Amino acid sequence: MQTVRDKSEYHRQTSERMEQHFLVPNWSVREKLALACRMLAAEGHDSGLAGQLTARAEKPGTYYMLRFGLGLDEATPDNLLLVDDDLNILDGDGMPNPSNRFHLWIYRAKPQVHSIIHTHPPYVSALSMIGVPLAVAHMDATLFHDDCAWLPEWPGTPIGDEEGRIISEAIGDKRSILLAHHGQLCAGSTIEEAAVMSLFIERAARLQLLAMSAGTIQAIDPGLAREAHDYRLKQRAIGATFFYYARRALRQDSACLGTREGRSTQAAE
Amino acid sequence: MQTVRDKSEYHRQTSERMEQHFLVPNWSVREKLALACRMLAAEGHDSGLAGQLTARAEKPGTYYMLRFGLGLDEATPDNLLLVDDDLNILDGDGMPNPSNRFHLWIYRAKPQVHSIIHTHPPYVSALSMIGVPLAVAHMDATLFHDDCAWLPEWPGTPIGDEEGRIISEAIGDKRSILLAHHGQLCAGSTIEEAAVMSLFIERAARLQLLAMSAGTIQAIDPGLAREAHDYRLKQRAIGATFFYYARRALRQDSACLGTREGRSTQAAE
Amino acid sequence: MQTVRDKSEYHRQTSERMEQHFLVPNWSVREKLALACRMLAAEGHDSGLAGQLTARAEKPGTYYMLRFGLGLDEATPDNLLLVDDDLNILDGDGMPNPSNRFHLWIYRAKPQVHSIIHTHPPYVSALSMIGVPLAVAHMDATLFHDDCAWLPEWPGTPIGDEEGRIISEAIGDKRSILLAHHGQLCAGSTIEEAAVMSLFIERAARLQLLAMSAGTIQAIDPGLAREAHDYRLKQRAIGATFFYYARRALRQDSACLGTREGRSTQAAE
Amino acid sequence: MQTVRDKSEYHRQTSERMEQHFLVPNWSVREKLALACRMLAAEGHDSGLAGQLTARAEKPGTYYMLRFGLGLDEATPDNLLLVDDDLNILDGDGMPNPSNRFHLWIYRAKPQVHSIIHTHPPYVSALSMIGVPLAVAHMDATLFHDDCAWLPEWPGTPIGDEEGRIISEAIGDKRSILLAHHGQLCAGSTIEEAAVMSLFIERAARLQLLAMSAGTIQAIDPGLAREAHDYRLKQRAIGATFFYYARRALRQDSACLGTREGRSTQAAE
Repeated sequence: MQTVRDKSEYHRQTSERMEQHFLVPNWSVREKLALACRMLAAEGHDSGLAGQLTARAEKPGTYYMLRFGLGLDEATPDNLLLVDDDLNILDGDGMPNPSNRFHLWIYRAKPQVHSIIHTHPPYVSALSMIGVPLAVAHMDATLFHDDCAWLPEWPGTPIGDEEGRIISEAIGDKRSILLAHHGQLCAGSTIEEAAVMSLFIERAARLQLLAMSAGTIQAIDPGLAREAHDYRLKQRAIGATFFYYARRALRQDSACLGTREGRSTQAAE
Repeated sequence: MQTVRDKSEYHRQTSERMEQHFLVPNWSVREKLALACRMLAAEGHDSGLAGQLTARAEKPGTYYMLRFGLGLDEATPDNLLLVDDDLNILDGDGMPNPSNRFHLWIYRAKPQVHSIIHTHPPYVSALSMIGVPLAVAHMDATLFHDDCAWLPEWPGTPIGDEEGRIISEAIGDKRSILLAHHGQLCAGSTIEEAAVMSLFIERAARLQLLAMSAGTIQAIDPGLAREAHDYRLKQRAIGATFFYYARRALRQDSACLGTREGRSTQAAE
Repeated sequence: MQTVRDKSEYHRQTSERMEQHFLVPNWSVREKLALACRMLAAEGHDSGLAGQLTARAEKPGTYYMLRFGLGLDEATPDNLLLVDDDLNILDGDGMPNPSNRFHLWIYRAKPQVHSIIHTHPPYVSALSMIGVPLAVAHMDATLFHDDCAWLPEWPGTPIGDEEGRIISEAIGDKRSILLAHHGQLCAGSTIEEAAVMSLFIERAARLQLLAMSAGTIQAIDPGLAREAHDYRLKQRAIGATFFYYARRALRQDSACLGTREGRSTQAAE
Repeated sequence: MQTVRDKSEYHRQTSERMEQHFLVPNWSVREKLALACRMLAAEGHDSGLAGQLTARAEKPGTYYMLRFGLGLDEATPDNLLLVDDDLNILDGDGMPNPSNRFHLWIYRAKPQVHSIIHTHPPYVSALSMIGVPLAVAHMDATLFHDDCAWLPEWPGTPIGDEEGRIISEAIGDKRSILLAHHGQLCAGSTIEEAAVMSLFIERAARLQLLAMSAGTIQAIDPGLAREAHDYRLKQRAIGATFFYYARRALRQDSACLGTREGRSTQAAE
């Protein structure tokens, strides 16, 4: 006959084991941001040149972001730009995406946010057109339980300050937001968190659209959703998931951490 | 003019020919479990690190399973863990997926089950959100005729004993179960059976969602469904289907039966 | 100002130009059947080991077909079986798919048919579950205008003679049939015709399901549909389309016309 | 506290930066047309041999187009035909697609148009069957705001002059048109514009179908849609987007700008 224990004991045991076993490479900010671009590209997040991933750089008020004109599938640590908080380039060639201006507003409003990922993937985009918020009705969507805001109006091409003000207010204290007629945004305390949430919000939108096309979505228990939300957002679990998708990106293109001068990919081994 | 025979004669002939011709490699439990991981990965069963495949090991009360943190597309015979019936590691490094605890409850309740495959693939996941059971309305779905249970409530993150009790009771005497807001589980008398059923339950869910999005599913004759169910679950037919998907996995990555020390893939030739 | 001509003149000119320019390799029956398997595999027609492609062989009452247990993506000219009209093997190893028995009934009933392709691809399969016939409401679906029968009941696992009688009667004088709860069948005067129709019936089913999921399909003019049907079924047009998909199959796997003894792929150059 | 500026200033700054940074290779008409074929092929625009891309050649009244019988994924600068305005070949082997006759009517009616792309991709095709125009309800679809006409009837196989007259009238002063029961057509002032619009009309149709299958599409503000339309159709933005998809095509097949005689792909570096 099996031992039966209280669930809290398994939660404690799982946390301890994750601390011990879920170790990840010591990638730099540039490396993690390039990997995040690649893993989102592999999961269909591109929409031409739209969508942008940014992260706080080492010096306050400075940020890394992809050069405008490059696709997510072309990111490397070396082709990222370093910009100041008015999108002026401090290091790198080319121009930043002018739509990244609204990222700056969020960084100013939320000091705990270290990375913002904003994309227009197909399922989130389609969902954003029909006037409903993201549904949290599957275990893998509980990352977004009480943690996904909803901007029901589209403020237009987001290159101005007004759009930044609107979006930074609308996200409030949530980690993510569904932007009507536009896409999704995840604001994470780490690049790993923003990336994993971005991967799973598109998956959640896909499941929602499939479910709505065939029937009526049934609700889940909010208390269980909260428990699962917290379980899945454990830093170690997010890190292990990011590491897995990073390995997939590296298997697809071992050069995605490389440079023109031949940086090795040893960090991923 | 053609000879016309009773269908029972063709059933007998087919069984005899399958016994003679449907031969498969003599893979070990570790090899079959790694191949099952790979074939499910190729068919889109991954959801990040969620989903797990397990099998009884040689010694009673011990089980093989993938190390937590690895994706289904990374399984090899050598990176599987051997654990006891409390998820303590007997052989291997890392940690097991704590959600595999509910597998243990099913193994205890159903001695004839030798392998359990639980995944969150997209179509099963979407179907699991709308409060309807799996429909058996296509010949290729008859594997599930009167053989797929339905758990209409989600008991939460399944790392505890309570979830194991609920799921092991809900599956009853069926080979498979649709878990609301969660995914699918197939409990097979062999790894091959659990794997082939898992591949086809996702396919069945996909067809069901497509059909429901466009119209109303029509019923099939239960007697014919039963005949097809039994035909398709013949051990030789399951074995040949598993072998086919294994060849596909090996063509995609010939190293999936290899080890760091260079195990050959000759078993698949 | 441009010259304006009667459309009949363009039809005549097009036919003449196709006769002159749409030349194709002189492949054998075995080679064409293997290529058809490969092109259908690439377009998602497999459903495990289900689905079969057959063709009349040189001697009356004999047929080529894939060995049961091999997938469509594994066909080569050399692993096809030659069988008689009771599915006894005349040349080759293994066993034929017992479901090919209903092919025999169609060959007997329709002497002009030289190749039968029957598959369970996903969109045809889903459409086959909802009790509606194939819709011809797009130019690329006009191949099936007044040329696709509909069997509204599923007679069960088609390994017996009764299923052969039912299906061969239901197809009547059409080139194709949608089989409820089962799949599609195209009976062509050539392998090329059966293959191209099979590729396009799955495409037509996909468009139909997408359209029905979003709105109400509008009818097209039957006279124009007839004109397009005849235009697209010109032997030269079918041949050129088959040749195109064959080149795609050969680019994907240059060995698909090869043998274990090293047959060259020069026929496809 | 951040500086807040009027949005017009950001528009001006963005235009200046694009002029400075969004530089593209100096490809020939043949090279750009071949690249356009390849990028559309990669995004699923083929429907067998249907669909055609054409461009004005250097001499008035002459046009480049793919040889009929080749797929979009087979285009190279060297296998394009040069034809006159009655589809007679001036340079190259084989035959043009007789359906390109309606392209000629549009070129005659719209002197500012330098390239026409007409394809039957799956989502546009499905949308074309249900009697509704393209919806512009997502930022990435604003390319088509007040710029996509709608032909609600299918005039039949478009190889005659009558079809050319109907389609060239129906497009009017728009850059694009949705052709009922048929497909899409984009008539651009450049190959780049026609190609990028073709990529995004299929994406827009996909989002529209997904959205309609799950709910009711909400409208966006026409003034904001107009602003986004003009922003996205800036020549530099279109050029950079085309260049990005061209790099993807070249990474997939570095030979797509090559010739049988070994033209280098240096233009894409």
